[in-house]
Amino acid sequence: MSLLVVGSIALDTIKTPFGQVKEGLGGSATYFSMAARHLTDVNLVAVVGQDFPEEYINMFQDKGIDITGLQTAKGKTFRWIGEYGFDLNDAQTIDTQLNVFRDFNPKLPPKYMYSEFVFLANIDPDLQRQILDQVESPGLVACDTMNYWIENKPDSLRAVIRRADIVTINESEARQLTKEPNLVKASKKILSWGPRILIIKRGEYGVLMFSNDSVFSAPAYPLEELYDPTGAGDSFAGGLMGFLANIGKSDETLMNFRFAKRYENTLIRHSGESRNLGFTDETAIRKGIIMGSVMASFCVEAFTPKRLIDLKPKEIKDRFSEFKKLTFFEDLTEIV
Amino acid sequence: MSLLVVGSIALDTIKTPFGQVKEGLGGSATYFSMAARHLTDVNLVAVVGQDFPEEYINMFQDKGIDITGLQTAKGKTFRWIGEYGFDLNDAQTIDTQLNVFRDFNPKLPPKYMYSEFVFLANIDPDLQRQILDQVESPGLVACDTMNYWIENKPDSLRAVIRRADIVTINESEARQLTKEPNLVKASKKILSWGPRILIIKRGEYGVLMFSNDSVFSAPAYPLEELYDPTGAGDSFAGGLMGFLANIGKSDETLMNFRFAKRYENTLIRHSGESRNLGFTDETAIRKGIIMGSVMASFCVEAFTPKRLIDLKPKEIKDRFSEFKKLTFFEDLTEIV
Repeated sequence: MSLLVVGSIALDTIKTPFGQVKEGLGGSATYFSMAARHLTDVNLVAVVGQDFPEEYINMFQDKGIDITGLQTAKGKTFRWIGEYGFDLNDAQTIDTQLNVFRDFNPKLPPKYMYSEFVFLANIDPDLQRQILDQVESPGLVACDTMNYWIENKPDSLRAVIRRADIVTINESEARQLTKEPNLVKASKKILSWGPRILIIKRGEYGVLMFSNDSVFSAPAYPLEELYDPTGAGDSFAGGLMGFLANIGKSDETLMNFRFAKRYENTLIRHSGESRNLGFTDETAIRKGIIMGSVMASFCVEAFTPKRLIDLKPKEIKDRFSEFKKLTFFEDLTEIV
Repeated sequence: MSLLVVGSIALDTIKTPFGQVKEGLGGSATYFSMAARHLTDVNLVAVVGQDFPEEYINMFQDKGIDITGLQTAKGKTFRWIGEYGFDLNDAQTIDTQLNVFRDFNPKLPPKYMYSEFVFLANIDPDLQRQILDQVESPGLVACDTMNYWIENKPDSLRAVIRRADIVTINESEARQLTKEPNLVKASKKILSWGPRILIIKRGEYGVLMFSNDSVFSAPAYPLEELYDPTGAGDSFAGGLMGFLANIGKSDETLMNFRFAKRYENTLIRHSGESRNLGFTDETAIRKGIIMGSVMASFCVEAFTPKRLIDLKPKEIKDRFSEFKKLTFFEDLTEIV
C-alpha cells in the first residue's frame, strides 16, 4: 500500500558535541520518507524554495519516492538552525526561517487522493487538516506535532488528533498538552479525544505505546556512536508507518482490519466521518514500533538522513533481531 | 541460599507532589530486605539508634528477616529528609543526619560468614569493603553506591567495584564515575575494572544491563498512581539478588556457575582473590532484573516500604507477567 506523507523539507544547520553540519538535508518529511521507503512506496507532499539543491531532488527520485506532490515555490527553502548539548534529548533552536513554508498551501495530486496510509508530520495543524480533507476515506492516519503548535494552535491541533488513528508525541509535549504530569493519565486523556493508539517518544529511552487496553514499551537501541538526534522521531514514524503499509498489502489480518474499519462497527466522529481501527490484535503495531525504533537508531548514527538513505535490507533485519535480543527474557516458571 | 545485605536503616521524612511522610521507616537495607525476603532468606547487617521504634524491629523479625547483625548503638537513628518535584527522578536532599551511622563498625555475626550471596547497599565504600573482608569466599557479590562516594571516596569505591560481580548505579552516576557522557562507553569502562554485570538504573525509564558481550533493556512499569520513588533502586536490587539466591538453591545451572566460579577458570584480581562468575547463560540475570523491576514498581506505589511488606506471591507473579506483556513483540518474519 502506498503511504502519503506531508511535512517539511529543510536545510538544517546543526551542532552537537560530536560534530556539525551546515545546510544539510533535513525536515520531517525527508527523514520520514528516507526511513519508510525501505518498506513501502512513499508519496511526498512538501514545499522547497528555488535554492533547493537539484541533487537532493534527484536523490528523492532515485530512491523511488514519488515527488509529484513536491512544490517548488518562489523564495528560499525552510531552514532550521539548532544545537544539542551532551544531553542529546533536548534540541535548542537557534533560528527558524520559515521562508517558503510561510505560504505553503498543500495540494494533493489527484493520484494521491486514495492513499490508504497517511502520515501528517509535524507542521501547522491547519495544514495537516487541509491535507487530510483532500484524502478520500483514508485507511490509517497518524500524526505528529510539537510544543509550538500546542501553545499556538491548540484547537486546530485537537481537531487533528481527533481524526488520527495513531498519534506520536514527545513525553514532555504529552504532559504539556494535557497538563497532567503522570504519563499514564496524560495518555488516557489523549486517547479519550479519539485516537486508538498513542505513542509517547522518550528519546534515548525509547517509546511507550498506549491503547485503551494495553501498554507496550520499546527501548531505544544503546549506541556507542551517536552523532545527531535530529529526525529520529520522524524516522521512527517512517519505520512504523512503512511497516504497517507494507504488511497492509500482504497480510490478511491487516487487510481485514482495514476493511472492517470502513464497513463495520464504525465510529461516528464530530466530522461525520466514519472510522474505526477495528483490529484487536496488536501484533502488527508492536512490530511496527520496533521497526520505527530500528530506523531511529540508524538515523542518529550520522548527521542528515545519510545513514538511512542507503540502508541494506540485511542491516534492517539484523538490527530488528538486535532489539529482540535487547529485550528478551523468559517467563517466570519457578518460585514465589 | 541465604542472602546477606549490609546497608542503612533510616527514619525518612519525605515530601512528594502526591503526599508526605514524617520519620517513616526507610534506608537501603530496609527496602532491599523487604523486597528480597519474598524470594529468599535475608541476613541483615545495619545499625539503628536507641530511638528506633520497637515495632519496626519486631516487623523485621515477623517477616522472617534475620536481624542477628542489627546493632543498636547509643544515640539516634540515621535520618534523611528529602523532597521530590513532579519529576520524580530527582530527589533533593534537605538534610542528612548520620547519627549512629557516623561510628558504624559493621561486624559479621559468625553465622553470616559463609554467605553465598552478598549485597553491599549504598553506604561508605570503606564499610562495604570491611564487610566483604569478613565473608568467607562469597559466591556472588553485588554493590550499589551514590554520587557522594564518587566524589569523596573514589579510590575506596573503585576497590569495591573491582571485587563485585554485579554493580548497580544510577545513570548520571555512571557518567560521573567515568567522566564519559555516552552510556555504552561508560559501561565498558566500568566493566573493565572487574565486574561481570553492570546495571544502569534510569528511574521511570527502567534499567540497562551491560555485560562484556550483551545488553539487556528492561522498562519500568508505567504506573498511574505513583507516590514516592524512595527506595526503588534498593527494592530493585532486593528483587534481583533475592531471585538469584532463590534459584541458586534449586537451579542446577546456577549451582554450576557458582561452583565454576570458585574452582575453574578463575580470574586473579588485584587482591589475589579468585573469582569468576563463570556462567554464559544470562537467562537467570535477565529474569532477576525483571523481578527487581517488579519489586521497584510495588515500592513506588506507597510511601515507606509499606507496599512491599505484605505483597502476596500472586501479586508478584502477576506483575512479572505484566512485564512480559509490556515488552513482548514477535520476530520479524516478512518484508525487507
